[in-house]
Amino acid sequence: MNLTDYIKDIPDFPKAGIVFKDISPLLANAAATDKAIELLAMGLHNFQATKVVGIESRGFLLGILLAQHLKLGFVPVRKPGKLPGEIISQNYQLEYGEDALEIQANSIQPGDLVIIHDDVLATGGTAEAACKLVEKCGGVVVQCNFLMELDFLEGRTKIEKYQLHSLIHY
Amino acid sequence: MNLTDYIKDIPDFPKAGIVFKDISPLLANAAATDKAIELLAMGLHNFQATKVVGIESRGFLLGILLAQHLKLGFVPVRKPGKLPGEIISQNYQLEYGEDALEIQANSIQPGDLVIIHDDVLATGGTAEAACKLVEKCGGVVVQCNFLMELDFLEGRTKIEKYQLHSLIHY
Repeated sequence: MNLTDYIKDIPDFPKAGIVFKDISPLLANAAATDKAIELLAMGLHNFQATKVVGIESRGFLLGILLAQHLKLGFVPVRKPGKLPGEIISQNYQLEYGEDALEIQANSIQPGDLVIIHDDVLATGGTAEAACKLVEKCGGVVVQCNFLMELDFLEGRTKIEKYQLHSLIHY
Repeated sequence: MNLTDYIKDIPDFPKAGIVFKDISPLLANAAATDKAIELLAMGLHNFQATKVVGIESRGFLLGILLAQHLKLGFVPVRKPGKLPGEIISQNYQLEYGEDALEIQANSIQPGDLVIIHDDVLATGGTAEAACKLVEKCGGVVVQCNFLMELDFLEGRTKIEKYQLHSLIHY
């Protein structure tokens, strides 16, 4: 099974000139999804991780499957205003302007060893913000874990101090 | 294990007077999450379902776990503008104004037997819209599946023609 057979190019989405990598065909196939999780988890047993963080929204999908596969708790990182209770916020730069991500203050404990998952590593802005949120809670990022990496956007330069694992490179 | 021990009341979120049911403690505990999936899946083998639809964003979490547990494909229903390719849209009423949900046109095939999952059944507006999206694609909704149901909001009156399964009632 070749996972790239389950990822579809959608030209001009979300805007003209961008080719979107659609993972819907992968999600729609239980065996392909299972294979992706098995490959995303490879080597992770060595990290003694204690939590998996998934980034809203598509990072929730394979993120929580990865967490359950490893029998670890799952922690969501979300867009501003979505998480209840005491939260910690982290701004990050967009091409034009800035945005923010949030995590619940008590979701990561000092000493937690954390895997951060998102479906795609693009410019690296959200991944870097998620790493900073984990660290603000006292956690240690043991791996940044992605289904896909868009190499030409060089997102890994923003998170080069962390272990990186990307299944598919474009 | 009592799953309600893993759901936390957050007063005045997202606005004053509303008590939000936070499932973060459940997600943070792999054994509690696994138990929830086992209970959400009870009886579902009888339905011969072919797909699980999860509603953005929190419905993605237990939705895709349920899909993998049943070895079924997962299909996301999302807010407007998020899904690439040809989409089908469905408006629904909010307390003030209206909103919409979308599904990819080719995600459900005529004859598909579909389980719709969301974390909470509140007023029923989004669940009803998700059912209509599945039917617009030619699918049949075999169950609406929720972790929690807020009985006092009477959401089930909007989807009473479907099979309903809610684990926890408030």
